[in-house]
This record gives sequence, C-alpha cells and structure tokens, in this order.
Amino acid sequence: MAEIVGNLLVGQSGGPTAVINASLAGVLQEAGKHECIEEIYGGLNGILGILNEELIDINEQKAKTIEGLRYTPAAALGTCRYKIDFKKKAEKAAQDMDRLFEVFKAHNIRFFFYIGGNDSQDTSHKIHLEAVKRGWDMRVIGVPKTIDNDLPHTDSCPGYGSVIKYNAATVMEIGCDVASMATDDGSCCIVEVMGRAAGWIAAGTIVAKREQADPPHIILLPELPFNEAKFLDKVKQVVDEHHYCVVVVGEGLKNEAGEEIGADKSRLDAFGHPVLSGAADALAEIVQGKLDLKTRTVKLGYAQRAAEHFASATDSNNAYACGVAAVKAAVEGQSGFMVKIVRNTNGDGAIKWGTGLQDLGDIANVEHFIPRDWISEDGFLPNEKFVQYARPLIEGEVKFPIEGGLPKFVAFDKTRIDKVLPARS
Amino acid sequence: MAEIVGNLLVGQSGGPTAVINASLAGVLQEAGKHECIEEIYGGLNGILGILNEELIDINEQKAKTIEGLRYTPAAALGTCRYKIDFKKKAEKAAQDMDRLFEVFKAHNIRFFFYIGGNDSQDTSHKIHLEAVKRGWDMRVIGVPKTIDNDLPHTDSCPGYGSVIKYNAATVMEIGCDVASMATDDGSCCIVEVMGRAAGWIAAGTIVAKREQADPPHIILLPELPFNEAKFLDKVKQVVDEHHYCVVVVGEGLKNEAGEEIGADKSRLDAFGHPVLSGAADALAEIVQGKLDLKTRTVKLGYAQRAAEHFASATDSNNAYACGVAAVKAAVEGQSGFMVKIVRNTNGDGAIKWGTGLQDLGDIANVEHFIPRDWISEDGFLPNEKFVQYARPLIEGEVKFPIEGGLPKFVAFDKTRIDKVLPARS
Repeated sequence: MAEIVGNLLVGQSGGPTAVINASLAGVLQEAGKHECIEEIYGGLNGILGILNEELIDINEQKAKTIEGLRYTPAAALGTCRYKIDFKKKAEKAAQDMDRLFEVFKAHNIRFFFYIGGNDSQDTSHKIHLEAVKRGWDMRVIGVPKTIDNDLPHTDSCPGYGSVIKYNAATVMEIGCDVASMATDDGSCCIVEVMGRAAGWIAAGTIVAKREQADPPHIILLPELPFNEAKFLDKVKQVVDEHHYCVVVVGEGLKNEAGEEIGADKSRLDAFGHPVLSGAADALAEIVQGKLDLKTRTVKLGYAQRAAEHFASATDSNNAYACGVAAVKAAVEGQSGFMVKIVRNTNGDGAIKWGTGLQDLGDIANVEHFIPRDWISEDGFLPNEKFVQYARPLIEGEVKFPIEGGLPKFVAFDKTRIDKVLPARS
Repeated sequence: MAEIVGNLLVGQSGGPTAVINASLAGVLQEAGKHECIEEIYGGLNGILGILNEELIDINEQKAKTIEGLRYTPAAALGTCRYKIDFKKKAEKAAQDMDRLFEVFKAHNIRFFFYIGGNDSQDTSHKIHLEAVKRGWDMRVIGVPKTIDNDLPHTDSCPGYGSVIKYNAATVMEIGCDVASMATDDGSCCIVEVMGRAAGWIAAGTIVAKREQADPPHIILLPELPFNEAKFLDKVKQVVDEHHYCVVVVGEGLKNEAGEEIGADKSRLDAFGHPVLSGAADALAEIVQGKLDLKTRTVKLGYAQRAAEHFASATDSNNAYACGVAAVKAAVEGQSGFMVKIVRNTNGDGAIKWGTGLQDLGDIANVEHFIPRDWISEDGFLPNEKFVQYARPLIEGEVKFPIEGGLPKFVAFDKTRIDKVLPARS
C-alpha cells in the first residue's frame, strides 16, 4: 500500500472502563512519533460527535493531560451507544455513512481508530469497507475495549482485568464483613456484577478465593440456566459449613426458560438490549423467603467499571499497548483489523504480553462466552482452567496521583476545532 | 482507685468497618505494655460469644496477625447485634448480666473493652454500672466505632473517614463514567449509601466535589424530608447545565410523612430497626418515570464499610489511638467512659488529633445528626462548614500487602480457651 500522509481521528465508544483512556493514550503518544500523521483529532462522543463534526485538536492539549489518561477512568473524549444500523434503519445508516465520509474528507482523515466493544468493532468494520468502496484511502483499526470480555480472538479485552481485580477485592472485603457478623443463624450476601449475557465478570471474582473456605462460595453465570432448587441447596450447604455465604451473580442470569431473572423488560437501551438491574434483588427474595436467611445485596453498577483506584496495571498496560499497536499497524499500511491481545508464555511459565491483528470481519457482533469446561461440574464455580486464565490479568496496580486523600484525574479542554461543514441535517 | 492486676477481655460489636480492627490492634498492642494486665482474651462475636464463654487467647496469636489487624477490614473477633435489653426483655437481660459476670469472674476479667456504636456503648455502660453495683472491681471502657458517625461528643467516629473516602472516590469515578456517556439526552446515576437515619455518610461524599461542576450534584440527607417536586426540579436543572446528574442518597431518606422512602417495612433487624435497602431504586423510578431520563443505580452496601483497599490513614490512625487510649485510661484507673476523638488545631491551621474520655452515660442511645447550618439553604448539598469538618478525615491511605494483585488480610486462629463454666442455659 502506498504511504499516506494526513490526519488522525480517534474516538471512544460504548460503556467506559477504567482503562479505555489508557488505549487512547497509546494511540495519541504513538501517533506523535510518525511524520505521516499530521493533525491528531479526537472525536467527541464517538460516532455521534463525529457525525456532528465535534472534534478537538489533541496537539492543543497539555502533555500531562495525555499522560494522565493512563490513570483516568471512563472515556475522556466522551462516548456513545450510537449504532449505524444498516439492517433496521438502512436509509438513516446510508445518510450517516455519507456524512461520516464528508467529515473524514473535510478534515483529511487518513487514520481512523475506534476504541470499543462488539458494536464499535462492527462500526469500524463498516467504515473500513465503505472507505475501500468509496476509494477514500484511510486506514481503519479497531482497538478492543469491554469489561464484558466477550470479544472473540483476543486473549482478553482491555477493561476486563481491572473490573475483576476491583470486584474480587470487593468480594474479599465483603467476605470479611459478612463472615465477622455470621453467627449460628447464618447470613448471605449477594453481589450483582455486570457482563450482560456473558459471565466473564462474575466468573472473574473467583480470583478472590485463595482457600476453599474463602468467598465467593457460589458464582451464578448467565451461560448456565438458573435452577432455583439446586441453588438453594447449595446456599444451605455453604451456610451449614461456614455460617455465611457470598454469592456473585452476573446481571444477565437467565432461568431455564431463557428469561433474565432480573430484567425489567419494559426498558431497553439504545441498542435494543433490555436494561438489566435486578438479579441480586430477585435472588435475595428467594433466599430470604425460602431459607429464612438474613440476606443483603450489593449492586456495584458503574462503580466497578470505573474503579481506577484499584485498576490492574497488567490490564492498563495491555490497553495502552493496543493503542500503540493500532497506530503502528495503520502506519505500516494495515486497515480493517482489530488489535488483539496475545499471551505468550516463556519457558519458565512467565507471561509475556503481546499484540496481534485480527480481521474486523471476524469480530463484529460475535460474542465469546466462557467454555463449559472452564466451569465446575455443578456449575457453581469456575474451575482451575479459568483461574489460570484470569489470575495474570489482575497483576499490578495502576499508580495515580492523590490530592487531599482523593484521586486527581485529568480532563481534556473540549474546545472544538472550527467546523467546515454545514450542520448535519 | 487501687491498682488492679488481672486479665483483659475485648470484644467487637455491631456492623463492622474498615478500621474496627485498627482499634483492636491498639487495645492489644497497648495491653502488652502493662504488667497489671496478665492474660489478654478476645471475646468472639461480641457479647454473644462472651455469654457462651467463647474466648481466644491473644498471646497465642502471631505478632504479625496483630500488626495485620491495622489493614484488615471487618471484625477479626467476629461481631454481633445482640442487645441486653432491660426495657423490653428484663428477665432475659438480668440472666444475661448474671452470666456475663460469671464469665468475668471465672476468667478474672479486670479490664473490659467493647468496640462498637451506640448500642454497644449502651451495653458497656450497663456492664460498668453492674460491675460497680456487684462490687466486681473491673475497668470498663468503650471504644467508638461506627461508619454512621452518629455518636455524640466525639469529633468523629472511627470508620467514618474511611467510608466517606471510599464513597467519595467512587462518586468521582462514577461521575467520570456518567459524564463521558452524557449526550444531549442526559443521564442520571443514583448512588445509595449507608448511614440509617443520619446523613453523615451521604453528606461526606461532598468531598469529591473540587469544582462546582463536579459530582455529587445532589445529596439527599435523611435529616431533611424528601420533597419530590423540588428534587425533580433540581435534577432537571443539573442535567440542563451538565448533561448528567449524580445523586447520592442516604438509605434512610424519609418523605414528609416521616416514612422511609426505600424501607421494606416487613423486615426488621435484630435491634428492631427496619431493613433499609431501596432508596436509590425508589428515586430512580421517580426520575425515569417523571423526567424520562436514563437513570441507573448503584448500591454499595457492605462494600463501602469494608473497603480497606482505599481506607483513610487518618481514620485508621485515630481508630488505633482510641484503642491505645482505652487501655491507658483503664490502667490509670478510669472506668465507665468512652474514648472520644479530639481535633486540636495548631496556630498554622494544621490538625493534631488527640483523644479524650466521655462518660458512657452521655453516649448511650443518643444519636448525633448533621447540624442544619452545615447544609445549604435548599437542602441539596452540605455547605463549606461541613466540608471543613470532613476533608481532614480522609487524608492518607492505609498501606496493605498485596499478593497476586489482591490484598492479603490476616485472620485469628480461633481456637477457644478451655471453658470453665457449665454451658449457658
């Protein structure tokens, strides 16, 4: 492919994580090293802002802001859940695509990076195909991001290691709390975690368990249908043994009819997925009602995916490396790929993390679930294969500055560059 | 008072905190310095375990376990919510008191320390009065503990600084997350925190706010009756200005009729208090329903009071100092007091923390609420007086060892000493 010289545009999409900004830092710091990259723009609120020509000039930002992205949670450029949906909204999608290319051309965008999860990789894929079709010479590389860890082909997704590190520490701490209050009557605490249809986040809390007696005692994965009777038997067995029971449940847990036990079906998000919120409360009602066991719930919600204050350095470094690798690949002439994380094991068993490229066509809208043989036979805990996979992802802590006892995060100056196009119709 | 020589018994009571073990470490390490203190016993599960003569010998524990208490959350001795209730259960209470003194005498307990909140100080007070009445020469000192910060006379309660430090960091992180997803439609996140009838914990998240635009934008305190119309106006105003709104609500928020908006009145805990759990969900329904604003909830539950991984060093040091001061006071012949935290301000404005003693009769069952003049006129945020009070409590971080990316806590060997009494009837 011929050498391109032009401008770079990067956007962030989907639910934020503790390390999506680390990937952004990787893109921006690597971009500064290449002469073929002239201006560096950030698109605000992902595709939605790009459609509205809402761009900021990264070269006008302070270097310490860029560096601070490595310890600042959530999407510093803003994000969106906007989907270019050729299936359901073909006409709107075609208009959007035209508009995107007007923006790319108006600002001579020759390098486009989109940091996000399944839907965002799909968007990147479509933009890449359109660029080829339209003959607009632009390198498009997707950068993975999702706490849900459900992208295929990559070892793991940036954001996942941090969420399970924080959640596992929280389960350990809650375990100390509940255990210390446990008298003969017993008690139960149900911790609801994110992950939608995939159980990776719930399963990841297994790393909190150093000894057989340690919590979590039961992990309910959306991959396996919930069986109330077996669950109650298991809770009773754990409480008989330890006087307390810590249950972790993935928000997307389904019953045997395939219905989410905690879903409020009357509410859908922008992608048409049901809003999941009540799995822990639904379970607590069952445990309290059927076993007459004092039961409390914890719903970490957004706290878990934004928990920079106990983020994984391994995860953050991998996220940064993905950003760097995306720019390197684009500069080398690649397009239409997602960067993936690769785990190489040295002869001594030590892990050396690397990156690779995977065709975006292999990624988009494919969900990756936990293999059944990584889960115990009774389905209540991930097994040693899972633990071997997950433990390395939580190694190390992200350092962050503290002022007055609290983290000091950075933020972009969001002064937009001058728009050159008429407003979007 | 004549010098006493004898054994020490310490117990922990009520809801655990991130630093109740720091107070225990203070008691145990100071106790080791005094020759008048012979054996050092820990009572398991507070009064409940002591009634059952469930004692462990602290001198049999490893020194590194005692030191590790300074960074181990929850109650290492176990705790309880058992109340000796002379008002409602006079006969049972009299039996309990007889049994307690049998235990004290059987083990020559001459120094008794009880680490806990309002109810536990009440228990300590009763034990002190009984000891005097029965002529059993024993020094009884209460050590304060409660995340709720509602004990009177003390500057603050050990546990409080840590819970607001963690909650404030969490609100900052959630704020980054919600802000980064905020598009023109706006969004709202409601974070429910503990504190029962007192708003100290909810109010404490104000320390997250460095700039006017920063979250939390609204804090709903149980001290002020909830007015739905004014609240919705305020949310709308915040979303109009910032595109998003972070609300913190104390679990015990009441409506104008004095009913808790999130209480499940069908469930009572062992002290007869209603179980509070649903304030955030109740508010989310209102915001989502009336303003058609995307709203999510976070319920930190036990996670907040056990969050050792971001505990306040100031709080932990004060907790330790309370334990030390309790032993010193007892050895000096004092009894019937609670240790209190005293804030001394140097000429240069720097705070020097100290301790003092307060008669247990002044403490028991008195609840201490936020002064009205520490809250903004519209009632939606604490004011600068509160901030001046709260900020120093979150200074510094508790250091803890990490193994494989997760905290490494300690635990007592809970081998009981030989019982010498017949089982409790």
